[in-house]
Amino acid sequence: MSTQTDADHGATGLPDTREAVRRWDACDPLAPLRDAFALPAGQIYLDGNSLGALPRETAARVQAVIEAQWGHDLVSSWNRAGWVDLPQRVGDKIGRLIGARPGETLAADSTSINLYKLLAAALRLRPERRCVVVAADEFPTDLYMAEGLLGLLGDRYELRLVEEGASVADAIDRDTAVVVLGHVNYRSGVLYPMAELTEAAHRQGALILWDLAHSAGVIPLSVAADGVDFAVGCGYKYLNGGPGAPAFLYAASAHQAQLSTPLSGWFGHAQPFAFEPRYRGADDIRKLLCGTPPVLALSALEVGVELALQAPMDQVHAKSLRLVELFMGRVRARLRDAALIPFGPAAAAERGSQVCLRHPQAWPIMQALIARGVTGDVRAPDILRFGFAPLYLRYVDVWDAVEHLAEIILTASWDRPEFRAPRTVT
Amino acid sequence: MSTQTDADHGATGLPDTREAVRRWDACDPLAPLRDAFALPAGQIYLDGNSLGALPRETAARVQAVIEAQWGHDLVSSWNRAGWVDLPQRVGDKIGRLIGARPGETLAADSTSINLYKLLAAALRLRPERRCVVVAADEFPTDLYMAEGLLGLLGDRYELRLVEEGASVADAIDRDTAVVVLGHVNYRSGVLYPMAELTEAAHRQGALILWDLAHSAGVIPLSVAADGVDFAVGCGYKYLNGGPGAPAFLYAASAHQAQLSTPLSGWFGHAQPFAFEPRYRGADDIRKLLCGTPPVLALSALEVGVELALQAPMDQVHAKSLRLVELFMGRVRARLRDAALIPFGPAAAAERGSQVCLRHPQAWPIMQALIARGVTGDVRAPDILRFGFAPLYLRYVDVWDAVEHLAEIILTASWDRPEFRAPRTVT
Repeated sequence: MSTQTDADHGATGLPDTREAVRRWDACDPLAPLRDAFALPAGQIYLDGNSLGALPRETAARVQAVIEAQWGHDLVSSWNRAGWVDLPQRVGDKIGRLIGARPGETLAADSTSINLYKLLAAALRLRPERRCVVVAADEFPTDLYMAEGLLGLLGDRYELRLVEEGASVADAIDRDTAVVVLGHVNYRSGVLYPMAELTEAAHRQGALILWDLAHSAGVIPLSVAADGVDFAVGCGYKYLNGGPGAPAFLYAASAHQAQLSTPLSGWFGHAQPFAFEPRYRGADDIRKLLCGTPPVLALSALEVGVELALQAPMDQVHAKSLRLVELFMGRVRARLRDAALIPFGPAAAAERGSQVCLRHPQAWPIMQALIARGVTGDVRAPDILRFGFAPLYLRYVDVWDAVEHLAEIILTASWDRPEFRAPRTVT
Repeated sequence: MSTQTDADHGATGLPDTREAVRRWDACDPLAPLRDAFALPAGQIYLDGNSLGALPRETAARVQAVIEAQWGHDLVSSWNRAGWVDLPQRVGDKIGRLIGARPGETLAADSTSINLYKLLAAALRLRPERRCVVVAADEFPTDLYMAEGLLGLLGDRYELRLVEEGASVADAIDRDTAVVVLGHVNYRSGVLYPMAELTEAAHRQGALILWDLAHSAGVIPLSVAADGVDFAVGCGYKYLNGGPGAPAFLYAASAHQAQLSTPLSGWFGHAQPFAFEPRYRGADDIRKLLCGTPPVLALSALEVGVELALQAPMDQVHAKSLRLVELFMGRVRARLRDAALIPFGPAAAAERGSQVCLRHPQAWPIMQALIARGVTGDVRAPDILRFGFAPLYLRYVDVWDAVEHLAEIILTASWDRPEFRAPRTVT
């Protein structure tokens, strides 16, 4: 399809009529999946990188867990319905999406908590080293959790921030214990080369912990083949697990025997129901569990993950690239002279499934878009962020979204009282 | 009612016919609440201290959150539906159940994680002290999390275990930073005197962190009036929030300005959506939040908490005492000569809403009970545990449960192949 040319395609190879875009949709092998989501009529939802859309099956699945498993079978469901294994069962399904082996992935807690567990565990594997390398523009919670952990450990550690644009590889040295890196930056969309940076860390004897929040479910990942040590990620973005869904963590098999985490809760114990007074971690990935698993939330997440598994990842990624290219191409075509500054890498292949555009009036422009049924979000101070979820977005949505954006910007129709930015953003 | 005597009441003041017990139910002011729960027909559920029953309203509430808030309003629900404030909103409702002031309670994470946050925060308030006092028979996850945290801090701290039966107050000294104590012991049912032990800790300059897992929602609590420093508790027992429901934490207002936790995730930041690179905790209870709040799970929990708020706590507690007394009285009447050994305090007022009985055949006896529709649980190695949730249990359930227990034990009908214990308990 990307090589297709016809009368409706301009010099860039991108369609330049809405009709041509609709033909892309007609040929899209993922198009049928859109019906598996309960999208509100008339909405163009470009915020699936913040909160993924609702799979149609979720409500019924959660209902069944509530009424049949909890309501009827009550406490016996811990065994009968397999609640006790949910973190591993859902984790292994996520593992298939990220290229992990069975037994290397858990669905549990939040991304923040999982990062803390794994960073603490990783530091113990490199006891003689004193430095943690993190990108300075990392999603803040990763920075905050690292700061919290290192703060607890006293003055022993340096949190080395790699400024935007600087080389991460160059920041890793023989004193680096762990590198923590978002695979796709939440704002700039920069996609870091996973295999290459993992190897760069290993060359210095360091470990690497990837945050896959903005890549799991949309970018092909092969954490095991790439030799990744640890990873965490989010259940409520491209996995469509629901607001505040449980997160996931990955720990390479090779490390598991040596791992221990300070968040040593009872579900990580070798025998949780033996109620032993001393902690003795499980001998597998379960040692990274902590409290009682959130059954309702894990059940909702499982639906989203199963849906993601239905879509071949090469098709998902190809569509992601094309959605991004189409969006950027249409912005260039319609808004070349506007005060819009594309933010992040120019090439779609070097970014995640999102585009950011800077504009001094980002806030009121987004409000005007939302009023027209086009949802993206704003990242302070001046960034319009648009995410492209290939499972449920159509190419024509992208076309229409840019048309709306162009109309709003070119007619300055964002400059109305109802779209004004609040004086203090909280 | 407890002073009532009639022809059906024995010397103990307890009814000694099923008919008299049914009259207790007829006069029970909490009886109408039972209809608010979706209990399976024919079940006598004495395990609400492990997993509380399903409120009838939960399924519809969660459905509405899934379909209208998530499905239709998508990411805008963080503000429009108040998702962003759910941990505080549900927390404050739990706060009313435990006698906290508004702004002192959060619903978040798991009990284990919340204990870690608060124990770490409390240790920072007593930097010169080196000892944490914990009951040796505490629910294991509390021990494990304390062990995990102190292990991370190196050799600086002593975890001082108070053996079962020994005085907790006597174990607290001038080197004690924090006392961690389950208000009701999960196994023995011992109810510790909260005001007295809080004062004992304070007399030594120590802080106290109560685990309310087995008392919130069933025992009258006044954490603020009792001067309690910190508390955690469970959402899925007497709060009926669902399997693995979010837990809660309480931090006294007086401490909040000084508090900081190493689990410093983005939702605890003063301005989460400003995406600042450095952590700066909120200036109120929100500083104890960590990751993105689990919206579906919090919504289910809110239903259970609202239901608990409908029942006046004095009535709940009076019924709890009477359920326990009736159960123990019936066991004495029917099973005096059996090999059953009551475990824990004799007086109902000195225990939580549960009874444990030791028997060498605890496992097969419980299996035989479950086969008859009476659900309790077993705690290794030989403890039959029965919990009494006053919101949905009837006195006649207690009568019938003991009749089943007596028939099983007196006829040794537990000694059938289908009830045999598995060779290895996992």
